[in-house]
Amino acid sequence: MSELTRRGLMAGAAAAGAALALPREAFAGAAAAGKQVPSFYRSKLGDFELTVVSDGARPIPLPPRFVLNVPNEEVLKAADAAYMPKGTVFAPFNPLLVNTGTKLVLIDTGYGPIAPTVGLLPQSLAAAGVDPKSIDIVVISHMHGDHINGLKNPDGSLAFPNAEIKVQARDWEFWMDDANMAKAPEGFVKASFGFARKIFGDIKTRVTIYQWGSEVAPGITAVDTAGHTPGHSSFAIQSGQSKLLFQGDVANVPDLFLTNPEWKVMFDNEPDQAVATRKRFYDMAAAEKVLISGYHFPFPGLGWVEKAGSGYRLVPAPWSPVL
Amino acid sequence: MSELTRRGLMAGAAAAGAALALPREAFAGAAAAGKQVPSFYRSKLGDFELTVVSDGARPIPLPPRFVLNVPNEEVLKAADAAYMPKGTVFAPFNPLLVNTGTKLVLIDTGYGPIAPTVGLLPQSLAAAGVDPKSIDIVVISHMHGDHINGLKNPDGSLAFPNAEIKVQARDWEFWMDDANMAKAPEGFVKASFGFARKIFGDIKTRVTIYQWGSEVAPGITAVDTAGHTPGHSSFAIQSGQSKLLFQGDVANVPDLFLTNPEWKVMFDNEPDQAVATRKRFYDMAAAEKVLISGYHFPFPGLGWVEKAGSGYRLVPAPWSPVL
Repeated sequence: MSELTRRGLMAGAAAAGAALALPREAFAGAAAAGKQVPSFYRSKLGDFELTVVSDGARPIPLPPRFVLNVPNEEVLKAADAAYMPKGTVFAPFNPLLVNTGTKLVLIDTGYGPIAPTVGLLPQSLAAAGVDPKSIDIVVISHMHGDHINGLKNPDGSLAFPNAEIKVQARDWEFWMDDANMAKAPEGFVKASFGFARKIFGDIKTRVTIYQWGSEVAPGITAVDTAGHTPGHSSFAIQSGQSKLLFQGDVANVPDLFLTNPEWKVMFDNEPDQAVATRKRFYDMAAAEKVLISGYHFPFPGLGWVEKAGSGYRLVPAPWSPVL
Repeated sequence: MSELTRRGLMAGAAAAGAALALPREAFAGAAAAGKQVPSFYRSKLGDFELTVVSDGARPIPLPPRFVLNVPNEEVLKAADAAYMPKGTVFAPFNPLLVNTGTKLVLIDTGYGPIAPTVGLLPQSLAAAGVDPKSIDIVVISHMHGDHINGLKNPDGSLAFPNAEIKVQARDWEFWMDDANMAKAPEGFVKASFGFARKIFGDIKTRVTIYQWGSEVAPGITAVDTAGHTPGHSSFAIQSGQSKLLFQGDVANVPDLFLTNPEWKVMFDNEPDQAVATRKRFYDMAAAEKVLISGYHFPFPGLGWVEKAGSGYRLVPAPWSPVL
């Protein structure tokens, strides 16, 4: 384009702007939406339809010993290197809904509304057009508060009133045992016993116990990944040739605990076993290149785990704009 | 829990299932949604509200020389290592909407409906509640088809009829010059001249030319990142102390072109300059730890770029479930 033409263009544009006399006032400064998009995400797995339905995310201010075998300074350095909010570890919560074609299965239920940025599962389900009454089976990976609290509404009623509720045998035995509770240390572990009672204390007869190696729903098999809790379970979800592993809390947030699989986060009930499980699980997942759904991975929490350095790294699955 | 209790529980659960006689038929096998969630995502930048409004994504089957200085075998190896669909490079398209409080500004407009999985910008905007008529300014980072085609509807009418349309001076001069078009090689470059004419040929007087270093909208400054095209521009977006760089195509998909900044993708018009720009841009962005919005980064395309090995890597910003 010549200088002349450009001058002509720019003059022309100015003239056009004047001539068109658009009613700009009517459009300028469109109101900000002021709220986030609903956080749910779909994908296909063979004939199954998966929906990650976020319960939210929150920055966790570090308690005195967040990782048993590493000083907080080192933890915060890793968190800072991962651009987390200063002085905190940023943790998302990703329940997974599986539509097998015959059953609607929800794996884990979120934290409940204990903070403004969590307990969002009901609104994520609503945005996804899922009636809580339509859920057939709720499977619990383990009985920590951020996985079970969403089973009940704030008024104590069941959030998924028509669902069969499935809990792993060893986890149930451990967390519902009053002697275990009596000797639990104050803090996270004691609180976890409290949550277990608050949620399950008056609905014991509604609970079905599952065992590792068995199907908790068609195509969804419970896998022994004990350590994080005594009955901590992952789930191998398979439809046709397509497979996904819902990992629960084999590792917490990847920037800290995939990178450093030997870090013993305070949430691990049996730390040595949790480390061994972590390595076994990810060595297998990396070798098989199997897609993983991570409860504490960045939403939507789907990706592959690879060996990297002395630990592992997450390769997030790219967002697909179509199903 | 004792064995007895567990047996009791399981028997109890079975009895409860029979006794409650839930009308499971009414809920079992809830219909699959069958479609993806709308792909848009909001964030705050100071007083500005940003919305990434996806135009979609698609797997690009490799033409004979996708990267000028690297054999396709090596490119496909990198794509495969990044879990892309076999034999293709998976590329997303992420236009960015900026609400400055006084102006609604759209940066780039997507591919148009040239394939089933792109041209989704209109539906992403609709899902975000944004009337195309309400957009005040459309800014074009550069005049390639996947950034400009969405300016027009399939019937040739303007998709954003009330918007001022802004194009960088050097890009306009290059792509609208008939002599340049006449000598352009067949294929991507020739096609790009065609797209430029199809979109801008009959709306020249609607276009405003912008220069590097100037504001294209309040708080949005055009930055010289030439090389990908002669006038290729990035945008420094600032509100208060908060800053973001919309990078356009400084690098294409990160798994290939952040990792290997010296790879000369066939889309780079001035390959040597594109490599130099890439290094200068990311060295600066990494040192400043500034958040980047990447048009071809995995949706929502926000993250930080760090030096890694002989190149760079993307640290995706975690999805925030609240604004």
